[in-house]
Amino acid sequence: MDMKTSTFERVESEVRSYSRSFPKMFDRAQGATIYDQNGRSYTDFLSGCSSLNYGHNDQDLKQALIDYVSRDGIAHGLDMFTDAKEQFLAAFERIILQPRDMDYRVQFTGPTGANAVEAALKLARKVTGRHSVVAFTNGFHGVTLGALAATGNGKHRGGAAIPLGGVARAAFDGYFGADIDTTEMLDRQLSDPSSGFDAPAAIIVETVQGEGGLNAASPEWLRRIETIARKHGALFIIDDIQAGCGRTGGFFSFEGMGLSPDIITMAKSLSGMGLPLAVTLLRPEHDIWSPAEHNGTFRGNNHAFVTARAALEKFWADEGFARKIAGNAAYLEQRLRAMAETNGLSLRGRGMMMGIDTGSGEAAAAICRACFSDGLIIETSGSHDEIVKVLAPLTIPRAQFAAGLDTLETAVRSQMDHWRIAAE
Amino acid sequence: MDMKTSTFERVESEVRSYSRSFPKMFDRAQGATIYDQNGRSYTDFLSGCSSLNYGHNDQDLKQALIDYVSRDGIAHGLDMFTDAKEQFLAAFERIILQPRDMDYRVQFTGPTGANAVEAALKLARKVTGRHSVVAFTNGFHGVTLGALAATGNGKHRGGAAIPLGGVARAAFDGYFGADIDTTEMLDRQLSDPSSGFDAPAAIIVETVQGEGGLNAASPEWLRRIETIARKHGALFIIDDIQAGCGRTGGFFSFEGMGLSPDIITMAKSLSGMGLPLAVTLLRPEHDIWSPAEHNGTFRGNNHAFVTARAALEKFWADEGFARKIAGNAAYLEQRLRAMAETNGLSLRGRGMMMGIDTGSGEAAAAICRACFSDGLIIETSGSHDEIVKVLAPLTIPRAQFAAGLDTLETAVRSQMDHWRIAAE
Amino acid sequence: MDMKTSTFERVESEVRSYSRSFPKMFDRAQGATIYDQNGRSYTDFLSGCSSLNYGHNDQDLKQALIDYVSRDGIAHGLDMFTDAKEQFLAAFERIILQPRDMDYRVQFTGPTGANAVEAALKLARKVTGRHSVVAFTNGFHGVTLGALAATGNGKHRGGAAIPLGGVARAAFDGYFGADIDTTEMLDRQLSDPSSGFDAPAAIIVETVQGEGGLNAASPEWLRRIETIARKHGALFIIDDIQAGCGRTGGFFSFEGMGLSPDIITMAKSLSGMGLPLAVTLLRPEHDIWSPAEHNGTFRGNNHAFVTARAALEKFWADEGFARKIAGNAAYLEQRLRAMAETNGLSLRGRGMMMGIDTGSGEAAAAICRACFSDGLIIETSGSHDEIVKVLAPLTIPRAQFAAGLDTLETAVRSQMDHWRIAAE
Amino acid sequence: MDMKTSTFERVESEVRSYSRSFPKMFDRAQGATIYDQNGRSYTDFLSGCSSLNYGHNDQDLKQALIDYVSRDGIAHGLDMFTDAKEQFLAAFERIILQPRDMDYRVQFTGPTGANAVEAALKLARKVTGRHSVVAFTNGFHGVTLGALAATGNGKHRGGAAIPLGGVARAAFDGYFGADIDTTEMLDRQLSDPSSGFDAPAAIIVETVQGEGGLNAASPEWLRRIETIARKHGALFIIDDIQAGCGRTGGFFSFEGMGLSPDIITMAKSLSGMGLPLAVTLLRPEHDIWSPAEHNGTFRGNNHAFVTARAALEKFWADEGFARKIAGNAAYLEQRLRAMAETNGLSLRGRGMMMGIDTGSGEAAAAICRACFSDGLIIETSGSHDEIVKVLAPLTIPRAQFAAGLDTLETAVRSQMDHWRIAAE
Repeated sequence: MDMKTSTFERVESEVRSYSRSFPKMFDRAQGATIYDQNGRSYTDFLSGCSSLNYGHNDQDLKQALIDYVSRDGIAHGLDMFTDAKEQFLAAFERIILQPRDMDYRVQFTGPTGANAVEAALKLARKVTGRHSVVAFTNGFHGVTLGALAATGNGKHRGGAAIPLGGVARAAFDGYFGADIDTTEMLDRQLSDPSSGFDAPAAIIVETVQGEGGLNAASPEWLRRIETIARKHGALFIIDDIQAGCGRTGGFFSFEGMGLSPDIITMAKSLSGMGLPLAVTLLRPEHDIWSPAEHNGTFRGNNHAFVTARAALEKFWADEGFARKIAGNAAYLEQRLRAMAETNGLSLRGRGMMMGIDTGSGEAAAAICRACFSDGLIIETSGSHDEIVKVLAPLTIPRAQFAAGLDTLETAVRSQMDHWRIAAE
Repeated sequence: MDMKTSTFERVESEVRSYSRSFPKMFDRAQGATIYDQNGRSYTDFLSGCSSLNYGHNDQDLKQALIDYVSRDGIAHGLDMFTDAKEQFLAAFERIILQPRDMDYRVQFTGPTGANAVEAALKLARKVTGRHSVVAFTNGFHGVTLGALAATGNGKHRGGAAIPLGGVARAAFDGYFGADIDTTEMLDRQLSDPSSGFDAPAAIIVETVQGEGGLNAASPEWLRRIETIARKHGALFIIDDIQAGCGRTGGFFSFEGMGLSPDIITMAKSLSGMGLPLAVTLLRPEHDIWSPAEHNGTFRGNNHAFVTARAALEKFWADEGFARKIAGNAAYLEQRLRAMAETNGLSLRGRGMMMGIDTGSGEAAAAICRACFSDGLIIETSGSHDEIVKVLAPLTIPRAQFAAGLDTLETAVRSQMDHWRIAAE
Repeated sequence: MDMKTSTFERVESEVRSYSRSFPKMFDRAQGATIYDQNGRSYTDFLSGCSSLNYGHNDQDLKQALIDYVSRDGIAHGLDMFTDAKEQFLAAFERIILQPRDMDYRVQFTGPTGANAVEAALKLARKVTGRHSVVAFTNGFHGVTLGALAATGNGKHRGGAAIPLGGVARAAFDGYFGADIDTTEMLDRQLSDPSSGFDAPAAIIVETVQGEGGLNAASPEWLRRIETIARKHGALFIIDDIQAGCGRTGGFFSFEGMGLSPDIITMAKSLSGMGLPLAVTLLRPEHDIWSPAEHNGTFRGNNHAFVTARAALEKFWADEGFARKIAGNAAYLEQRLRAMAETNGLSLRGRGMMMGIDTGSGEAAAAICRACFSDGLIIETSGSHDEIVKVLAPLTIPRAQFAAGLDTLETAVRSQMDHWRIAAE
Repeated sequence: MDMKTSTFERVESEVRSYSRSFPKMFDRAQGATIYDQNGRSYTDFLSGCSSLNYGHNDQDLKQALIDYVSRDGIAHGLDMFTDAKEQFLAAFERIILQPRDMDYRVQFTGPTGANAVEAALKLARKVTGRHSVVAFTNGFHGVTLGALAATGNGKHRGGAAIPLGGVARAAFDGYFGADIDTTEMLDRQLSDPSSGFDAPAAIIVETVQGEGGLNAASPEWLRRIETIARKHGALFIIDDIQAGCGRTGGFFSFEGMGLSPDIITMAKSLSGMGLPLAVTLLRPEHDIWSPAEHNGTFRGNNHAFVTARAALEKFWADEGFARKIAGNAAYLEQRLRAMAETNGLSLRGRGMMMGIDTGSGEAAAAICRACFSDGLIIETSGSHDEIVKVLAPLTIPRAQFAAGLDTLETAVRSQMDHWRIAAE
């Protein structure tokens, strides 16, 4: 490690993580390419865990931000009315909500996904007067105590060092195999007054579990979950933080599925350029917050409003971008399916949020290391980090996408061969 | 309300708050001045609740950001090594830690103060294997469930809609009057094995309670609290989110007091320009996190690293800024003391974090409204919002500071007269 | 209601319950017969919810108690050594533990089943350093807060009026139908580090769920649960409060199943005569209690020791009683099976703890009311109180047993006919 | 240890405690005298921790029980109407409630004090819809999880091995010295919306803290606590389990103080003969339980009803017994005051619930050991077990009382001398 990265060893907490997988000092980035301080370029198949769906430093978003900063646009205004916020809200209403016939209020929470989830769970409990929230196996919703209770990951849960309450756990789609309908199980438990499942304030679900292993719920399963929520008087919350903003095709991950969530949480790619921004979308009838009841200093990140609006206008004003995503996703699926079949592995995920289940955390780690040696940044997910997860920018040029997938293909083949030999 | 602000009424959640006190659309800001969309200027005595200690859009910070964005500097890199992060850490080590002989590791948490507090409390519980944390009356530490348990404010606590656990409450300095030493009480309770106070993982305290009413703890009281923490095996945590970054004079609010906190939380003005950034500073021996055990997508806000480093270099490389703050604080105290004495009120707070206790939330609100009519943005704090709180930029020019205080003086006099007459 | 029962209306809390189903004033009882104040006799198929397995006022137990009281035997001795306690312990060791090659320590808890469960859960958490306990759908373990968290019944849970923590819920044998092996589900969840199921301190289970609907777990299922507990480092607790003391055939409900629970809770019929007594049996290696760490004023009920010892010596010194129970159980099963088949209903339970699933709480209630009119005391169980539950004294004479079952048969037929007609 | 006590070593859990202080095998008892198996007699100044206020095996109570058992009176009837229960209720109404103009409903809980407390706290939360209960430093209310949360003792709390929630802690009368009015502190905290004290469901208090160190609250302090409860919408609960039933003079410990608790818990001496019995007395307007919402198998201990009624009729039908208690208490106070003054110690407690503060757990233990050698059973209490506590039967003959106090006096003098010499 050179002199500069030694600063991190000396001063940064041991909690740092991605810098361990990718131990280079990065300097600048453009589109799907990141450069380290020595000028070497890397293709980014991680995209800030889906926070950079439009790639790094999109020229239009970047210019909008520079213009705003240059003209002394308000950077920090608490939750006061600002021009930047108004334009974002108006664009969100016009471009996202109205065309989809969605009637939601926007709550600006502290600019982290976890904070949006905390707000959602608090509000659901306030609205219903109930305390328990149903969350799913392998779900990930953040690591602050309220959100962490809903998160399945044991390492993160252990970090709390106290018991986490207020959440009942249900099995995600397919958790017990294809033959078992886990919605029937949940309905049975909630319908049985003696099951030990308290009447829930909410059911919170990701349509595709990004951290939990690219488990994609079927539309039918999601519709049944919504039906169960309604039947039992619970709010239906979709956590769209990782799967939303185009990652699975539409702006929301559940478009076209016939779902009407009571609450939707969004963050990650919402600002378009990776700036911290999070919102909780509420059906108006649930908007019973008193002023500042859930607050936070950075709950109006005006720079993020500027880039978020620019992203909405550039990418979502018509259907061109969604078509482009669909094309990329089809290509991705074709490539991954080939890799999976060649190596006897299985495909996971949906849209531009797919990966390969290697069956082993060690194998997956080895593949990612091999990719990084060859200039590709890619990470794992799943209970045992056994899924190699492709989260390329949605805007990645086809040639670069293909080259990155070539790199992945080579790494999968060589590492899985190696792995099989070692196992024999 | 005009057409544009009606967007907020239509689309933004009822949880919005400051926009209710200051119902104008703001557009740009520079130094201590904010402009609304009609070009009217306001002096800012709120400063993003102490997030804008260096004023709005400081020219050097702004230019550093523009340069960084222009050259495609990485905006979002998860917690990977970046040049911007390295430079921030190196500057923090060189300018802040080393001259103060402080040995701390920096943990980048999700970029909200609440998230930094959540990390602090989790770590204290991990380190000690204990669950209970002592927090103080009128303390404010954020509204996510872990931090909210430590927060005193009943409205915020009620927002959780479930019981909050893991925190024992102690009385802040002076809570029961000047004659009662609340540290003796706490020591008694923690020393008594039958008191019902469990051995604590940590004691978390603000040196000046910003939201709780500008209650300033004496150095002696804080030293005794630290001594009690050590005596009972608890970590000593200073939440310096609102009082730090120069607000009370030094970079940390506790400088020169002979304190050695185990953990320090910082956010608000840390980025210098109001961009979301939060850190938890840890004594190295407590840095037992496993990688990613506490994580979060936006835990490395590179734009904020750029402006934060620029702010450290501009304001804290020598002692000039601290002297300037001291001068402003002395002037503020002189002016507020005069107002308080004239109106039979009392002074609260410390440094550039002072205010006047009007004894009534209604009176304080009326004063703030009158100020706003006269072009001054100022807010309240305290259990009943009865404190009018001056949080001017630390960099405010003396003439503008004086004019703002003139406005406040007029409002206090007229409103308190009005109030007294109404009460008779 | 006559003058005397009006005392209850005036002075006793609304929480009273069985007196609503059986609104007579009872006076004395002998064997399987209870007499009301007018001298009318009732056959008791409720047996104090299995607290009177040896019938009311067994002559030998009663005489032992009278002798003890007459000679000023110690009634209350806290947990001091007394002759009565020594004789009970010695008899328990000689008659129960040693012949079964069971090595357990006896903890005398407060004399309620709930208290024995509280002790068991506390100890499991102490031993393992873990907080979560796995309990099952429809389980009943008591209504004090620690035990109540493990209890499934929603009405009882609601009585807490605060969220109940520290328990994860799993599905009992057959809960999702005969085709789904719920042990595989539990093992999957506990093996998956990201499932959201924390590593458990214990798994607590009833072999037959008395309150939950006479659900009888198969020996195979119970063995798998024990295996899962061992695999995941959890203690295996059998709550034998209702099913033990001969109710299902042997002294313990799990005899001959090849199980070695770490902790066993007992109460109800343990004293033999219905006197309050509860114990928690611990494997010696788990007996890490410090003196008085779990205490309680009545934790040594010496009168109960006297009758409990007499019961052990009378009923369990040889195998005659177990044979008698088996004979009664076979007869019960034959009679209930006939009733079930005749009426298109199903049989539930095991041993002398069987009943008929009427499919409807109203039907079951009607049957019990009809029985009571005809001099038979019998109650319901199950999520919807839909199971008519036969809990006759194990010692009931065959003729009285047959007559009681005749009464039940008549009631089932007439009420189910009535019910079917009403439903058509 | 002889062969018989070795049974305990072999088979009883390490949790046993009093048998460690008094390692003899006891056999029978009468009045204030206990006999061991070798026929040696001991005077009992422990009285089952106040469960034997009328002495051991009172002849009338004992005879009533023998008669009841002999005539096959119902021993166990769940909560059905029985003659024994009716007579107890009627006597309680006639002898206790009506003459004191008290209007309460009687809830029969599981027959432990902890269970009565659990019921009280659950009901207070149900009635108010609030979750937090205020309990006091050094309070003892039982060790099941709900009651344990209200108990101050750290060893007992630690036994839970999980965090205990739902209770806020306040300081008992005199906790911070005679000069500090702890009711003002509590009122301040509950009146301050930002104190971190949630609006309480109840305030639960013992008038004399039996386990906590014989701290006796003044009537004024108790009245202020009741006033605070009313002011803040909380129920006022008196836990009279140890101090009630004559121990401090009247049937209730708070008689003549002008208090009207919403809920009163009773157990210990209620049955008169040490048999398990506990009740929760409720103001009728709070009796919102649904049937069986709080239940328990032994919630109607009919043997205890018989002896409890006999005790009420024998001791409380007129004022003679109260006068006798007053006489004994005056004598006790005179003797203890002399011992305290002679040895430079202080007196604690009230009525027949007084003791001497030795200032050291070791000294107090040595005194108790010395007493036991001389045939006196006496125990300690307090945060450090530093109080030697006299809990003689209220019925103890004066000569035996005097002889026991002589023994104590000798032990105090010799041990305190020894202690002082050792300390020099």
